[in-house]
Amino acid sequence: MKKLLLLLLLPFAALCAWGEPLAKSVIKTDSVQSKILGESINYNVYLPAGYDASAAEKYPVVYLLHGLFGTHVDWATTGHMKEVVDELIASGECRKLIIIMPDAGDPDIHNNWNGYLNMPGCNYEDFFFLEFMPQVESRYSIIPDKQHRAIMGLSMGGGGSTIYSQRHPDKFSSCYSMSGWLDEKDPGKEDPSDKFYYARKSVHELSAIEFVRNSDEAALEKLRSVKWFFDCGDDDYLLELSVQMHVLMRDRKVKSELRVRDGWHSWEYWHTALRLSLPFASRNFEQ
Amino acid sequence: MKKLLLLLLLPFAALCAWGEPLAKSVIKTDSVQSKILGESINYNVYLPAGYDASAAEKYPVVYLLHGLFGTHVDWATTGHMKEVVDELIASGECRKLIIIMPDAGDPDIHNNWNGYLNMPGCNYEDFFFLEFMPQVESRYSIIPDKQHRAIMGLSMGGGGSTIYSQRHPDKFSSCYSMSGWLDEKDPGKEDPSDKFYYARKSVHELSAIEFVRNSDEAALEKLRSVKWFFDCGDDDYLLELSVQMHVLMRDRKVKSELRVRDGWHSWEYWHTALRLSLPFASRNFEQ
Amino acid sequence: MKKLLLLLLLPFAALCAWGEPLAKSVIKTDSVQSKILGESINYNVYLPAGYDASAAEKYPVVYLLHGLFGTHVDWATTGHMKEVVDELIASGECRKLIIIMPDAGDPDIHNNWNGYLNMPGCNYEDFFFLEFMPQVESRYSIIPDKQHRAIMGLSMGGGGSTIYSQRHPDKFSSCYSMSGWLDEKDPGKEDPSDKFYYARKSVHELSAIEFVRNSDEAALEKLRSVKWFFDCGDDDYLLELSVQMHVLMRDRKVKSELRVRDGWHSWEYWHTALRLSLPFASRNFEQ
Amino acid sequence: MKKLLLLLLLPFAALCAWGEPLAKSVIKTDSVQSKILGESINYNVYLPAGYDASAAEKYPVVYLLHGLFGTHVDWATTGHMKEVVDELIASGECRKLIIIMPDAGDPDIHNNWNGYLNMPGCNYEDFFFLEFMPQVESRYSIIPDKQHRAIMGLSMGGGGSTIYSQRHPDKFSSCYSMSGWLDEKDPGKEDPSDKFYYARKSVHELSAIEFVRNSDEAALEKLRSVKWFFDCGDDDYLLELSVQMHVLMRDRKVKSELRVRDGWHSWEYWHTALRLSLPFASRNFEQ
Repeated sequence: MKKLLLLLLLPFAALCAWGEPLAKSVIKTDSVQSKILGESINYNVYLPAGYDASAAEKYPVVYLLHGLFGTHVDWATTGHMKEVVDELIASGECRKLIIIMPDAGDPDIHNNWNGYLNMPGCNYEDFFFLEFMPQVESRYSIIPDKQHRAIMGLSMGGGGSTIYSQRHPDKFSSCYSMSGWLDEKDPGKEDPSDKFYYARKSVHELSAIEFVRNSDEAALEKLRSVKWFFDCGDDDYLLELSVQMHVLMRDRKVKSELRVRDGWHSWEYWHTALRLSLPFASRNFEQ
Repeated sequence: MKKLLLLLLLPFAALCAWGEPLAKSVIKTDSVQSKILGESINYNVYLPAGYDASAAEKYPVVYLLHGLFGTHVDWATTGHMKEVVDELIASGECRKLIIIMPDAGDPDIHNNWNGYLNMPGCNYEDFFFLEFMPQVESRYSIIPDKQHRAIMGLSMGGGGSTIYSQRHPDKFSSCYSMSGWLDEKDPGKEDPSDKFYYARKSVHELSAIEFVRNSDEAALEKLRSVKWFFDCGDDDYLLELSVQMHVLMRDRKVKSELRVRDGWHSWEYWHTALRLSLPFASRNFEQ
Repeated sequence: MKKLLLLLLLPFAALCAWGEPLAKSVIKTDSVQSKILGESINYNVYLPAGYDASAAEKYPVVYLLHGLFGTHVDWATTGHMKEVVDELIASGECRKLIIIMPDAGDPDIHNNWNGYLNMPGCNYEDFFFLEFMPQVESRYSIIPDKQHRAIMGLSMGGGGSTIYSQRHPDKFSSCYSMSGWLDEKDPGKEDPSDKFYYARKSVHELSAIEFVRNSDEAALEKLRSVKWFFDCGDDDYLLELSVQMHVLMRDRKVKSELRVRDGWHSWEYWHTALRLSLPFASRNFEQ
Repeated sequence: MKKLLLLLLLPFAALCAWGEPLAKSVIKTDSVQSKILGESINYNVYLPAGYDASAAEKYPVVYLLHGLFGTHVDWATTGHMKEVVDELIASGECRKLIIIMPDAGDPDIHNNWNGYLNMPGCNYEDFFFLEFMPQVESRYSIIPDKQHRAIMGLSMGGGGSTIYSQRHPDKFSSCYSMSGWLDEKDPGKEDPSDKFYYARKSVHELSAIEFVRNSDEAALEKLRSVKWFFDCGDDDYLLELSVQMHVLMRDRKVKSELRVRDGWHSWEYWHTALRLSLPFASRNFEQ
């Protein structure tokens, strides 16, 4: 009976079983030991179909950041990023690339650190640029330059992507913010026992919006070396931040894209955002 | 500290927390006792935000069918249907409706029944129309007529939707087939111990394509009372079936829609199909 | 030879020549004599395929407004509205409806009137509601009620649509503004010889944004009886107006949709907007 | 008064008037003297914003072909290609490129030549590759190699693009066929006085579908060096040809994309196709 089934399925198999690429992409969980943070930091890595560590081929890289309350597994488990990336690469809408999803969060936001910026006791930004990026880019077959590196993320990760790209414009060719937490007007009253207070404070102090507002022409010229994209749902409570960023950058003649699509602060929004963000990153890699 | 956070989040809450509707939709698992099948059959039901069983309001209904190897939970767990439906209803692209997802399958396809058609020992089609539909439509606030009832499904469920709509055109206002298993040229050699053989045989005998081919003008006229939509990925091994159906129906002057989008026989394809299928069903309910 | 060609084309013809509906829609130019304006006002009317003035069937109506410098022919000649509407109706994404495109403009904006509002010497709004709407709705087979009437337009026509719907919420079931001129902070110094000054002044005085800002709960409740949609390009110099409207209405709990797509103040933007606006109007007609 | 207006518009102008790029693209009509055809052949050329013939920068090129009954002006006048290309280049979805639209047709199809293939008395294919391509590619700042050259077209031009790419796979990196006339089963009875007979005969003899069917492994390997895309409306009478091509190529393991969107054999279909075809060509230029 099993044999019969196999026989029946042969024509399907011949058509490259169910239409999927025969070579498969994989998502692996890995970690980096950080001296700066004094602990091991996990990350997920997406390796495209046909990836072969021993081969000479090197790939562009996308850093894909999760949001508040999240961890490095979110994009794979809840965001179903693999399904979208596989399809975009198969159809050529996105180049073959490696995607790195680091851990910068925890559901217990008051007792554990969340955030991509330096906070007292958690210098995550230092870790990211001094330890994390160099190590993952040498561990995998990645082309380690601005022209082949992009960053994107959701909510706190959209803010992180934008602030990183502003402060390190020599590192990223493009930045795509989804429902980005780009500013925090009032971080509230200082509470040394509340790690979330420091997360808010870091966004307040490194506000992406204030960064543009305070940029002189030399700083703006550096921003112009990055491609910018802000994407936010029309029912998202953070909508105004993305619009403000785009308008402010337009006024300062830093070109950016803005899209407001249907939706709110939800995984469905970010899942569909990948269909825009990955082709955007891909076409802004060096040609 | 918790109080502080609440305080900080108040403005968000005031904006209808995170943009989501305050009233929430729910998915419940329920079951129907079947005399025809001699067992209890599970189903999932999506009830829209604001659904109130005690109120007078009644809703249109969509039957949403899973594929081979699947069960009634697939559309919720793997297909993430709730996320899409909530958004489409919130933006008005889809009317408020109830979605019924019955169980007609099992991952062990050789030892357990899969399929929506009558098979020796499993008269599922009889169960569906004589027991299931009447019971769920009286249990929930559903408008129980053709003008407010649609059917759709993936693969085996796309075939099931189409064959049901052909054989019961007085029951459904529209039918949307995703990557539909619409025909089975050769069901293989009879194997009484293999339930999957009978599933194939049932599709062979009730082939949706042969149904159109063999329809006389009176039968075609009945088909014209249903709105038809065939949607299949360009890398799907079942692609030709959807195209054949559409071309055949066009030649017989039964209007249908055909879409070939990027993708293969995958949940990502069916997840995105909901953005087409639900507005399609919705606009074909009576106005 | 001609015969041979006919013979060869027969199979095509049999398939409903080139796939187009055999019955054709038409666009006609017509006019209404206005006592209020003291002149005859032209308009274009789109009649759907199969329209038959002598039949009993009546249709919903959409008023589709042009922008500054424009006239009633723009949507047909430059906006190619017919091509889109035909396709949307054929696929069922839009109900069969009648579209009225009135003339409220002129390329010579300083010497001739442009605008949908009352201006000294040109009470266009009075004309529209007291003369134009009643006459066209009795001249064609239109269902003359709020539940079957929608309004939409571009730039000055987006502002006109919004302001009309605010001031006459009992008249329209939905309003779709494309790149809307929704406010005019500073109309400039009065110049009695400049008709464009009065156009700006009318938008200043009847600002759609101020209307919402100044609405009490009773007025807001009336606004809630209309479905609202604001659509504007990310490179459009009027972008902020659409965003302001949406945010303000959200804060006042008047539900609206906002979309920011790629593009600027251009016919390509408005042409593609029809694919969103007409299904939106259609699904908000009474069901 | 004029001054006042200017004053009022200044803020707009500062924002890069109406959001459009300040530098403008242009479409020019030019011609090539052909010895092979014994006459001068016209073409339209799209030069992107900022094009400067005296500068060193060179651009990729797309050949964009019209259909039966058409000429070199169609894509600009009826297809409104400029509006779409400007927008795609501005947003980065398409690289800056040059688009060449040659003349291979006439509305009087019986008395004048239509077609891209060699016909007795009109060796258009010879002209295209031996005279036209070399001359336009040296006249404009074009990178004259396969890696930076794409071809696409509608109906007869979709067939032409496909047949050219099959017979000259060393010339094009990608080929996009819209509603392609890819085969002609029966060209009818020979009629020496009818130029359209020879157009049909040329498609019959150089059938794109038969080409794949008759290709040996060496020929298939050459086809694999080109990226293929077939796009056809679900109500187009030529639908089956595009599907046949895609399925046949899949079976021969030549990767291609297929899309069936809503629509028929119409300019609205081809106008919207540019939003898919140009990014496709762009991302398949050498990186």
